[in-house]
Amino acid sequence: MAGLTETLQQVDTGLDASLERLFAFLAIPSISTDPAYADACKAAAALAAETLTGLGFTATVHPTAGHPVVVARTDTGAARRVLFYGHYDVQPVDPLELWETPPFAPRFGATPDGRRTIVARGACDDKGQVFTFLEALRAIKATQGALPVDVTVLLEGEEECGSPNLPGFLAAHAEDLKADVALVCDTGMWDPKTPSITTSLRGILHAELTIEAADRDLHSGLFGGAARNPIHVLSRIIGEAHDENGRVTLPGFYDDVVEPPAEVRARWEGLGLTAETFLGPVGLSISAGEGDRLVIEQVQSRPTFEVNGMFGGYTGAGTKTVIASRATAKISFRLVADQDPEKIRLSFEAFVAPRVPADCKAVFSWGEGARAFLVPADSPDLTRAAAALEAEWGVAPVTIGSGGSIPVVGQFKTRLGVDTLLIGFGLDDDRVHSPNEKYDLTSFHKGTRSWVRILEALA
Amino acid sequence: MAGLTETLQQVDTGLDASLERLFAFLAIPSISTDPAYADACKAAAALAAETLTGLGFTATVHPTAGHPVVVARTDTGAARRVLFYGHYDVQPVDPLELWETPPFAPRFGATPDGRRTIVARGACDDKGQVFTFLEALRAIKATQGALPVDVTVLLEGEEECGSPNLPGFLAAHAEDLKADVALVCDTGMWDPKTPSITTSLRGILHAELTIEAADRDLHSGLFGGAARNPIHVLSRIIGEAHDENGRVTLPGFYDDVVEPPAEVRARWEGLGLTAETFLGPVGLSISAGEGDRLVIEQVQSRPTFEVNGMFGGYTGAGTKTVIASRATAKISFRLVADQDPEKIRLSFEAFVAPRVPADCKAVFSWGEGARAFLVPADSPDLTRAAAALEAEWGVAPVTIGSGGSIPVVGQFKTRLGVDTLLIGFGLDDDRVHSPNEKYDLTSFHKGTRSWVRILEALA
Repeated sequence: MAGLTETLQQVDTGLDASLERLFAFLAIPSISTDPAYADACKAAAALAAETLTGLGFTATVHPTAGHPVVVARTDTGAARRVLFYGHYDVQPVDPLELWETPPFAPRFGATPDGRRTIVARGACDDKGQVFTFLEALRAIKATQGALPVDVTVLLEGEEECGSPNLPGFLAAHAEDLKADVALVCDTGMWDPKTPSITTSLRGILHAELTIEAADRDLHSGLFGGAARNPIHVLSRIIGEAHDENGRVTLPGFYDDVVEPPAEVRARWEGLGLTAETFLGPVGLSISAGEGDRLVIEQVQSRPTFEVNGMFGGYTGAGTKTVIASRATAKISFRLVADQDPEKIRLSFEAFVAPRVPADCKAVFSWGEGARAFLVPADSPDLTRAAAALEAEWGVAPVTIGSGGSIPVVGQFKTRLGVDTLLIGFGLDDDRVHSPNEKYDLTSFHKGTRSWVRILEALA
Repeated sequence: MAGLTETLQQVDTGLDASLERLFAFLAIPSISTDPAYADACKAAAALAAETLTGLGFTATVHPTAGHPVVVARTDTGAARRVLFYGHYDVQPVDPLELWETPPFAPRFGATPDGRRTIVARGACDDKGQVFTFLEALRAIKATQGALPVDVTVLLEGEEECGSPNLPGFLAAHAEDLKADVALVCDTGMWDPKTPSITTSLRGILHAELTIEAADRDLHSGLFGGAARNPIHVLSRIIGEAHDENGRVTLPGFYDDVVEPPAEVRARWEGLGLTAETFLGPVGLSISAGEGDRLVIEQVQSRPTFEVNGMFGGYTGAGTKTVIASRATAKISFRLVADQDPEKIRLSFEAFVAPRVPADCKAVFSWGEGARAFLVPADSPDLTRAAAALEAEWGVAPVTIGSGGSIPVVGQFKTRLGVDTLLIGFGLDDDRVHSPNEKYDLTSFHKGTRSWVRILEALA
């Protein structure tokens, strides 16, 4: 039976074929948050299941109230089983006009400093990352016949819209999904040369707030000056949600936020990350966050109140002299440490109530919240995976926190009792969720090689 | 030659035919602010010109950079000439789902208290009002052969989008448009039984403000807490534009606002208009305006800062964890007394500047402003028209102010040297600019009869 070297060579020689398969996956517009793309989501799930079947997995596409969940598994009786999680859905592409090429026509590109890239919606988040794992499996099967561990692959299609159906699915299939360790490939590297394992994530809570005023749109000439304008009311609420120092003003918002351990704080200070270095690449230079906090704290260990979208009144071309009857804000909170989504919900409703005139109405719509998550630093699998990554990249991985949220990690712990290793190969300049999203070719290639080594190490 | 009585009888007996002609006009979706309806605007202009030609007018459809202007005139050598102004364009219909029947399928309806109505976009503003005048001309021609005065009819198609091309048109055609008095039918009655002549109007100034932050949309997990959110910046600006007392906080905003004459104020106080009585019909009960002002002051003699529309970030279905790169507010100011649009523009820009972070940008787009207008109370034509209205309605017309803006009135004064009588038959419950706009059948019928009497009186 061939060994690691042959398998890694197989990854290298098979790279073009791997990219061809990835491009076919990227070409499917599986935008989960927009019902118009339901069929595309089905198609992406089907392609993933078909791919895994081709690798000798028993694959099933499970329908849900939303988009399907793909579960595929090997049962060779290996000593250990890993559960790999990823998602086949992607973010919406708007604003479309800012894309240099169509978002679902994958192409090769290059960064200003000459790194070769794959450009498409989902190139990194999460289709490209998922394929690093699938192509690693393919190379191992091709060279060694069998995998060193049994593998369960779980691919959902609603990660970009809050995974509404995943908790129920995990509860219903907890037994089948049991594993010794979970692997999630939806995070980033420290820099293009340094791999990382993410050991902390922020939680998330989605809210939609609509202020309702008059029972119809009003002529701003006849009623302007007396009639309440819900856009003004909503703007004041949003405007007052942060103080001059960038601190969220919701009552008790920071109650359950804890300070990072001294050594972590020391490491952060050592990084010398500044607003200029962190925000410069996206055209900003001044941090909007808490003035007395490090930038890395602001995006990793501090909670946020963020308006992701806001709309009310006339938004078309030209002008319309109208006072709208309602205005809406789409809001998300990033949660840290011990913050409880339920307490945050009550805090926001308490913050809004006194700011709504008695003859107006505040209508809330809440998503299911997810708490923040911290991976145990003493996990033996963490040590094994770190060694495998160092062997591939020639430098020890940095263990970092992420400001993002991957609720499934917490659910694996609570519903399956499984710890998760968050290992991904994304980079800060990948433009995930933005126009012209990309994934470095090196991330894809060495990411695939990394999984070969990690699966070996976890055996 | 037949007299007034016969002409009024002709209006009565011809009512059904008049309504048929109005319905054909209402069926044209001449939404001027949306380029998609340019052809419909052309069609409405053509129908108006054709109608006037049929009444013996010399009618011309003048193309402009935007929608055409219709000018039609008689030249019988009568002692006096009146210039009638109206507009054939209408407001957008959104939100379409709130219309009980299609906005451009005119129908008869009824108010809860049994008044018969015409329901359609433009039923009142301004197609229905324009037709009261055209059908009055028709009845006079039919019964008397000639009009008692020479008439110039000026119909524009951009009133609902700020009349960008009208000032230039008036300047270019000032000579042809000269008249002894101008008549504008785009205002309302005091109540369903009491006519009115509007003697004051608020001016208007349109602005669009866009806050630009990062050079791309950002992932709110990776950047949230450090990256500036332009929706937050814009919301704070809008939220701070009014104080707790409903007063606009822009520097010097009230400098050129004057107090109404004592007798006007006394009359206003006598009206006993309250927030409950004024706002109750639209589902509100508390005034949003300056706490120390009468409601009627708030909507007529006090200036406003109003956001007519606001949008930024993700506004589609579901959620998107994004920090937008920009957010926009469509704003209009209602101006009173001596307020100068240019000074208000500078005041708002000065208000915004210190509220925009140094690494963000505020982009302004301004429309041409219009000052407030006051009709001289001692105009003999005002007296004549008032007598004619009293003869028709059996009660003397109330001279009132309007919070709306009809910039053309100021331009008639400055560019043509003509004073304007604002006489209209709209009602507070007509839902102009809102879904299910209507016009009372009585407004249309007696409005037509009123013009017959007024034209006679002005001879």
